[in-house]
Amino acid sequence: VVNIDEVIIDEIGVTAFVPGSGPLADSRKWDELAGPEKVIIKHLTGPSGTTKDGTAVISDRLRWKVSPFIGTIGVAPEFEIRSSLTGQGYWGGNMDCRDIKPGSKVFFNCYNDGGLLFIGDVHASQGDTEFTGAADETRGEVHLSCDVIKGKQIPGVRIEKEGSIITLSCEKPMEEGVKTAIVDLMSWLTDEYGFTQKEAYLTTTLNPDFRVNVYQMVKIDDLRYTVGAELPKKYL
Amino acid sequence: VVNIDEVIIDEIGVTAFVPGSGPLADSRKWDELAGPEKVIIKHLTGPSGTTKDGTAVISDRLRWKVSPFIGTIGVAPEFEIRSSLTGQGYWGGNMDCRDIKPGSKVFFNCYNDGGLLFIGDVHASQGDTEFTGAADETRGEVHLSCDVIKGKQIPGVRIEKEGSIITLSCEKPMEEGVKTAIVDLMSWLTDEYGFTQKEAYLTTTLNPDFRVNVYQMVKIDDLRYTVGAELPKKYL
Amino acid sequence: VVNIDEVIIDEIGVTAFVPGSGPLADSRKWDELAGPEKVIIKHLTGPSGTTKDGTAVISDRLRWKVSPFIGTIGVAPEFEIRSSLTGQGYWGGNMDCRDIKPGSKVFFNCYNDGGLLFIGDVHASQGDTEFTGAADETRGEVHLSCDVIKGKQIPGVRIEKEGSIITLSCEKPMEEGVKTAIVDLMSWLTDEYGFTQKEAYLTTTLNPDFRVNVYQMVKIDDLRYTVGAELPKKYL
Amino acid sequence: VVNIDEVIIDEIGVTAFVPGSGPLADSRKWDELAGPEKVIIKHLTGPSGTTKDGTAVISDRLRWKVSPFIGTIGVAPEFEIRSSLTGQGYWGGNMDCRDIKPGSKVFFNCYNDGGLLFIGDVHASQGDTEFTGAADETRGEVHLSCDVIKGKQIPGVRIEKEGSIITLSCEKPMEEGVKTAIVDLMSWLTDEYGFTQKEAYLTTTLNPDFRVNVYQMVKIDDLRYTVGAELPKKYL
Repeated sequence: VVNIDEVIIDEIGVTAFVPGSGPLADSRKWDELAGPEKVIIKHLTGPSGTTKDGTAVISDRLRWKVSPFIGTIGVAPEFEIRSSLTGQGYWGGNMDCRDIKPGSKVFFNCYNDGGLLFIGDVHASQGDTEFTGAADETRGEVHLSCDVIKGKQIPGVRIEKEGSIITLSCEKPMEEGVKTAIVDLMSWLTDEYGFTQKEAYLTTTLNPDFRVNVYQMVKIDDLRYTVGAELPKKYL
Repeated sequence: VVNIDEVIIDEIGVTAFVPGSGPLADSRKWDELAGPEKVIIKHLTGPSGTTKDGTAVISDRLRWKVSPFIGTIGVAPEFEIRSSLTGQGYWGGNMDCRDIKPGSKVFFNCYNDGGLLFIGDVHASQGDTEFTGAADETRGEVHLSCDVIKGKQIPGVRIEKEGSIITLSCEKPMEEGVKTAIVDLMSWLTDEYGFTQKEAYLTTTLNPDFRVNVYQMVKIDDLRYTVGAELPKKYL
Repeated sequence: VVNIDEVIIDEIGVTAFVPGSGPLADSRKWDELAGPEKVIIKHLTGPSGTTKDGTAVISDRLRWKVSPFIGTIGVAPEFEIRSSLTGQGYWGGNMDCRDIKPGSKVFFNCYNDGGLLFIGDVHASQGDTEFTGAADETRGEVHLSCDVIKGKQIPGVRIEKEGSIITLSCEKPMEEGVKTAIVDLMSWLTDEYGFTQKEAYLTTTLNPDFRVNVYQMVKIDDLRYTVGAELPKKYL
Repeated sequence: VVNIDEVIIDEIGVTAFVPGSGPLADSRKWDELAGPEKVIIKHLTGPSGTTKDGTAVISDRLRWKVSPFIGTIGVAPEFEIRSSLTGQGYWGGNMDCRDIKPGSKVFFNCYNDGGLLFIGDVHASQGDTEFTGAADETRGEVHLSCDVIKGKQIPGVRIEKEGSIITLSCEKPMEEGVKTAIVDLMSWLTDEYGFTQKEAYLTTTLNPDFRVNVYQMVKIDDLRYTVGAELPKKYL
């Protein structure tokens, strides 16, 4: 378990349109989006006196409260991965999940002595799917702590955030990822919360607060999409 | 424009596991879900004295506040559709979108004199994707009114709900639907709110409140998935 | 069963690049393909003295033997379909399958008295996927005969062509269509040729002459992709 | 360029149904396919006196001529890959392409001094998609030679086999892989054979001998599907 306590971001961030990359890079209709284009984002300090609750500003029109999170987090699997940028999977990696943020607990299986946690790729903010492929990328200072749960194995990465539990999948095509995340949530409900199979199936189908989140859908190299299935804790 | 004022649901609803249908119907591991299974859901009245803000109850464990919406809504296209159950597309249809609910305005192009609006398939509640394929299906009483906007054409169905604007897509595979919904939202921003192409691209990519909703992902017959791209109005 | 005896095509055919349609219509890199573009194809007579074994000629470089087939064929389902252009499914329709050609038998279930067979949309030739969305479209004269098999139901459209049997699926996403076609072929092997489940699974996996054909992959409106699973008869 | 001269397979091969793996492993309907199941395949010698043109025999019903090919072939990319089993991409890898066989030339870009070619995973035969996930896996003796083409870069792996040229893609979802393979073939035609963009687009759409091959569609770990676009050389 990794407990995320704080993510303090730098005073500036950057995003970019990369030529040949991104869903509209080759579009004739959307002809202003071919790139290369670099955009600097200012992070103003917030009520805390730090940027962690500050405001991101590109222009008068483009400004919003930051929502910092950790884009890449995982534990070393049993094998060498290509890089922290492109590797993703049941061990974590570059998942770009906005719910891996202060107040969240992230559960990974461990594949090596000591776990070999790695983190990086802090984002000041990101919309669902990270459409262009680059979020508000920034330096960050992260405070976290880890607990070890012995003798337990889980089917995929899990998150407990304030108020809800979430299962993550990293897969393609997206239909498969959505199904995996939901079935893993059903397993969580049946294995640890005493739900019957039917109760778990009915909950994901009928509960109006059950959510599927499309955290990342970037077509770069061998990245897969990150999908989450989320249920408020009050239903557990 | 269709203004949804009120959706009052019946005192009971029903859902079902249909043999041979649904993502786990043939699963050996999830062997309690093969069906046939019929589940009756009671709808208790809420503070309003009606069921519209009431509680859905299957058992002590399975209970939540209802969140009624209109599953099927659309205007007749230029051709005969197969049925209100399976037809979906730019004219609407069985979209199963939880945001077509009281307080929402839904925008359709019109293809016939008088528009020929049709509605039905009220759901008392539904989780994202409507996983089994059947939500809390119920009778409903719907109050709505319509306005006509002359001389305007939109690329797909649009929703204004309290606090946000949403574009819908009905497509397969899901990657295509997500892309269409986002690009249609970008068109909305550039065509009607004065955003440049770059501002629209940056907003969907970076704004932490930009959401992609997977309203429905049911593999029945020729249904397609319903996806929405949503942006809070305060950023317009 | 529909026995296709002969498909005689007209002396010219036409194909087109439609603006806004087709996989490269909006591409900046492939900037000559935006359309509108109409291309006339001449069909020279062949050894038979007719065009049925003739040659299609666009230019010196672009010429090949024609391979005429019926693009749209089906029996009326139990409901009104939108049009013969966009309707597809277990009843047939606009499948654009190059194996529905002279010498083939096509099997459909019947849903109405008399079957209500319809055909049209003859193509003089088509590459796999019909990439732009328009093949060598032409008028045609078709000779066919029908047999009725009573009291039998099949899971999807089947073809017997010279030398092989084929199951068709019309689905999205493509992974689903491929799986459905293969599983339907396995059902054919187990139901009618005495294969065990294991023999059918081993055959599709190991037989080097087992083929998956991507007949059509056109993203227009509500068309779905047409995929076929094919096994030579000598293995039956 | 890697010239494949000969692939001589062992006298036996093996395939297996792995529990929890494969498209029907969890199916209640196909209940004989859950595994674990191991199947030994005998390879009888053929006219050449070796197994290279021999016959694979599982039973009286399940026998066919072998069609040996190299399942895994590639050059080391610029980074460590996870393993030769799961790594695939523009550098090659576990592509399971039945056209990488005796008589074929396979073109890779080189990313390291000496190229660092690796091969393995010989299959005696395989049907399209390698449905269960395991082909006729066998030991093999491979004779090949390499040529170096200096100063040239290609967008993806290319094959010249007797009579045709093929472009490969390793992607998900399958729609994307099919499109990439076709567009890469169009690039080959325009870059090296003097086709205009329109001629290339018309050829893939209309030429009745243009084929899309679904070599592999296995959902294991981070494998992607292998698709090929193939055009006979006589049209070049």
